[in-house]
Amino acid sequence: MGSERYVDKGYKPYLAFDERVKRIAELPGVSGIELTFPGDVNAHNLNLVKSMLGSYGLQVAALGVELVCDAEWQTGSFASDDPERRQRAITLTKEGMEVAQALGVDVVSLWLGQDGFDYVFQADYARAWRSLVTGIKECAEFLPRVKLAIEYKTSEPKMMCYVNSGGKALALAQATGCENVGVNLDIGHAFIGRENPAEVASVLLSENRLFHLHLNDNYGIADDDMPVGAVHWPQLIELFYRLESLAYAGWYSLDLYPYRDDSWEACAASITFIQQVCDLVEDPSFAEELHKQQGGAPSKVLHWLYKKALMH
Amino acid sequence: MGSERYVDKGYKPYLAFDERVKRIAELPGVSGIELTFPGDVNAHNLNLVKSMLGSYGLQVAALGVELVCDAEWQTGSFASDDPERRQRAITLTKEGMEVAQALGVDVVSLWLGQDGFDYVFQADYARAWRSLVTGIKECAEFLPRVKLAIEYKTSEPKMMCYVNSGGKALALAQATGCENVGVNLDIGHAFIGRENPAEVASVLLSENRLFHLHLNDNYGIADDDMPVGAVHWPQLIELFYRLESLAYAGWYSLDLYPYRDDSWEACAASITFIQQVCDLVEDPSFAEELHKQQGGAPSKVLHWLYKKALMH
Amino acid sequence: MGSERYVDKGYKPYLAFDERVKRIAELPGVSGIELTFPGDVNAHNLNLVKSMLGSYGLQVAALGVELVCDAEWQTGSFASDDPERRQRAITLTKEGMEVAQALGVDVVSLWLGQDGFDYVFQADYARAWRSLVTGIKECAEFLPRVKLAIEYKTSEPKMMCYVNSGGKALALAQATGCENVGVNLDIGHAFIGRENPAEVASVLLSENRLFHLHLNDNYGIADDDMPVGAVHWPQLIELFYRLESLAYAGWYSLDLYPYRDDSWEACAASITFIQQVCDLVEDPSFAEELHKQQGGAPSKVLHWLYKKALMH
Amino acid sequence: MGSERYVDKGYKPYLAFDERVKRIAELPGVSGIELTFPGDVNAHNLNLVKSMLGSYGLQVAALGVELVCDAEWQTGSFASDDPERRQRAITLTKEGMEVAQALGVDVVSLWLGQDGFDYVFQADYARAWRSLVTGIKECAEFLPRVKLAIEYKTSEPKMMCYVNSGGKALALAQATGCENVGVNLDIGHAFIGRENPAEVASVLLSENRLFHLHLNDNYGIADDDMPVGAVHWPQLIELFYRLESLAYAGWYSLDLYPYRDDSWEACAASITFIQQVCDLVEDPSFAEELHKQQGGAPSKVLHWLYKKALMH
Repeated sequence: MGSERYVDKGYKPYLAFDERVKRIAELPGVSGIELTFPGDVNAHNLNLVKSMLGSYGLQVAALGVELVCDAEWQTGSFASDDPERRQRAITLTKEGMEVAQALGVDVVSLWLGQDGFDYVFQADYARAWRSLVTGIKECAEFLPRVKLAIEYKTSEPKMMCYVNSGGKALALAQATGCENVGVNLDIGHAFIGRENPAEVASVLLSENRLFHLHLNDNYGIADDDMPVGAVHWPQLIELFYRLESLAYAGWYSLDLYPYRDDSWEACAASITFIQQVCDLVEDPSFAEELHKQQGGAPSKVLHWLYKKALMH
Repeated sequence: MGSERYVDKGYKPYLAFDERVKRIAELPGVSGIELTFPGDVNAHNLNLVKSMLGSYGLQVAALGVELVCDAEWQTGSFASDDPERRQRAITLTKEGMEVAQALGVDVVSLWLGQDGFDYVFQADYARAWRSLVTGIKECAEFLPRVKLAIEYKTSEPKMMCYVNSGGKALALAQATGCENVGVNLDIGHAFIGRENPAEVASVLLSENRLFHLHLNDNYGIADDDMPVGAVHWPQLIELFYRLESLAYAGWYSLDLYPYRDDSWEACAASITFIQQVCDLVEDPSFAEELHKQQGGAPSKVLHWLYKKALMH
Repeated sequence: MGSERYVDKGYKPYLAFDERVKRIAELPGVSGIELTFPGDVNAHNLNLVKSMLGSYGLQVAALGVELVCDAEWQTGSFASDDPERRQRAITLTKEGMEVAQALGVDVVSLWLGQDGFDYVFQADYARAWRSLVTGIKECAEFLPRVKLAIEYKTSEPKMMCYVNSGGKALALAQATGCENVGVNLDIGHAFIGRENPAEVASVLLSENRLFHLHLNDNYGIADDDMPVGAVHWPQLIELFYRLESLAYAGWYSLDLYPYRDDSWEACAASITFIQQVCDLVEDPSFAEELHKQQGGAPSKVLHWLYKKALMH
Repeated sequence: MGSERYVDKGYKPYLAFDERVKRIAELPGVSGIELTFPGDVNAHNLNLVKSMLGSYGLQVAALGVELVCDAEWQTGSFASDDPERRQRAITLTKEGMEVAQALGVDVVSLWLGQDGFDYVFQADYARAWRSLVTGIKECAEFLPRVKLAIEYKTSEPKMMCYVNSGGKALALAQATGCENVGVNLDIGHAFIGRENPAEVASVLLSENRLFHLHLNDNYGIADDDMPVGAVHWPQLIELFYRLESLAYAGWYSLDLYPYRDDSWEACAASITFIQQVCDLVEDPSFAEELHKQQGGAPSKVLHWLYKKALMH
């Protein structure tokens, strides 16, 4: 549908869940889908969803607990200053983890976009941080075999979010002391946070905390959620190279928001981009030639990359 | 209501037009309201609206032609590549100008947020620019006594907008060759465009092209539309000082979007801020003391401002 | 040499002018060089420089008047509040224009990086704007056959610069009323100003005001002056396509600042990138295929571009 | 002196160390100074410096190990891919810690501005991260009573730095497993990283990892190092309030870079700002009134702050 602040009903008709699944299944190269709990799937429709996805040959890549997109979360979820709200977030997350387990899904994603603040003096930051750590720890210990992937983002919907960088997400995961707390890296959120996705991914992989990936692109300021490759080719080539070298074993999930674009076409373009880049970087010659360029003038690597990756 | 991408129905109930007017009239220090055409006022309800506003003692500060907030404008308005759409924008603007004239309103505001592009290779920029110039010129010449105030903004809803800076808006106004084309300076748009509002206002006043002002505040990245004073005190003090010195004769209009805040309170806080700052800078001692500080070390002026404007 | 705030002597030895020219001449694909006045060339060494460049087969692409890189300009040049300083800027620019004419150079570039302010209340913006307009007009009228190309930039060295966007530069050129005042578009400055270089170039070409180009790349925040192609491939492909379609007739000038990189290699990599992209977009099939993609879903053009321009 | 990329010799004469100390001692309200090792103080001049500072009544607030501002560090320090360089950084840091101990200084600050990268494919991020963790851990264990304060920054001098956010610095400290590794929060670096300094400070204090503070201000994009209060009054008022409430016990250190401004005046203005804000927020009425405002409409707190802190 694509709601936004300006055109609240979006620019195109709303698609029901089963219609969306059907269209996703028609995308070449897609073998899974990311679902939200409890909107898309829950304890009641679990088997129905399972069999529907099975009929399309789709796996569930990850389950996202919905803690943002309803006015009920406007004071926050895990970090709300309202203890009942915090408890509700914990309970819902545990239920989501159980559904994930029942579905055979490894990764539950938590995007805490309402845990933040709009103005100065609105929030008690130290208390909020402790609530985040203890609440997520409680969930993680509830089902240690389910991985919790925290999705960080600088801003939105709250003007300022607590879990606002790759580093903050890593620090939060470490502070819980739980090995099953890690990060869902949305590479667009990395770009708007002035990070290089390949760098964040490498650090997280090196700490065994990269559990999931959201792929999209933007102009470096706002979370445009444009097709992969709309802006950052060298950065994306490097990202997929690092993921391959460091043996990332999770999913490549598209998180696009094509306001005025056709959703299916935006996904198809993204998939083409990803496949072409993977073909390029997974060829053994790529790593071999790269290593030969490194160590000299830094721009020699760029020069090589231009010849290797840019059609001419 | 406060729709957004995440919570499409917003965080609070929708208020009907007359209810909104009633609440605005209750704000201390408010003597006018900005209306949209044809949503709030049009040829059919003109007299009704006039008499309702009159009963509240409210004037119409400016009339904004609605060319953004409906899916029909998704290819743009004045700069759309669809000639029918461009014609529709011109016709609607002329009708809005007539309604403004009938209401005794000097300024018609044009925000062209759909005139832009999302991806590379999507738009024909040179053609779009010529369409902007000729379309706005046609409207301006239609009723030369009505002032057209172009509101610029870097981005949103299109990822990239054509009229994206104070300079671009000024260049567009100049290119029409019409004296009744100028700028609606939204100071939040100035901040996200890395401009200093006081500087833009001064240049536009010096060119007789500052026709209207939208006041709000933000963190310098996105168009947060927070209460005036949420972030930039020295910049706002300077802005109101320059407006006063350069004899700006237009309205101070609040353009807030308090997603999760009470709209009335957000306006009331903004009005307090503006009044306090105006009291400060309009006192003759302010200009006198300021001039004594200037010419020495640049930070002497800051030092003076801290003592003058910050409570201690 | 590459001075910076942190390592004031830079990271590598200083190269004398003739040594730099020699190395530049060794770059494949280079036929001209941009000089500064009065540092590199002036009335005294004019013939010497001419014959030296001739011996290397190099033309002069543009002459930049040096109005920034000396402490004498710290209050500004054309817009300084010191009338003697403003006069000095005008005189120096006129002298530079005469040298340009003597050299047979069409374009004199003016970068006014000290014309701006650091703090609020430091500058008189309205007066500064009028000084810019009248000073540049005086120079332009002095030698109407020499083109003055204003180089805009958001920031640096002053924290905030007056001529801070493509729009502002265009508005300034228009305000002089002189046809020989236009813009030197540094595409890195466009990126940090949240502009799309292809869009700015198209608007300026459509107004006959694009006189010169500085090419480089950056991460979208600071003026990194990295090799062309370090970040923005689709945006650069579009830029060169638009320049070609709109028949830009000026130079492609590299403006890099390879702090910790080898300057020659950084230029060589950039030249490879530019040549490969030009080969791509100048092939008639590019425009033909592009036109076939346009008009449908916006991402279809991206999809096509991925297949056309990304090696796989 | 104030070197920069454009005016490499800066805009004013260089001051020798003892002259700088003398001028700093003349600033009202200053009781300490931050020194660099080995530039300002080292094993050889230790007693001399001690007695000179004593004669001015100045303590040493913190000791910064110089690992950035010399071409020798261009491949990085703790995270360099050159093992000898990494060893040199470790050795120098240990020596600095010993000098700090001899001076009775608690905090050694480490700013790792060369540990990062300019281009894609230039660095091995996973290896670099491990080098950071192990190198800093080795130093921290060497003298556990000396606190190591990591200063983070998004960018500069490397285009992209590894320790680029408050979260990353916290994660790094946690990863060492050492209680004496924490953070030097430069609030200007927080602003350019889209963080709210009060929030970062609160989280770090809650984790016992806020060891030092650098105070300055900027426009939110680049590290302008302007006087405190040049831009962000509400954010700074909140920062000092949180530091007071959470019992921060470290120093308030000014880190300004007044290129074209008088250094002494820039410091004096900053000190006035800090003192006035501290007077305001340390008054018991501030906290009392604040608590009464919280819990209602978020802008009620802003409204109260305007009346409380803005002169009228």
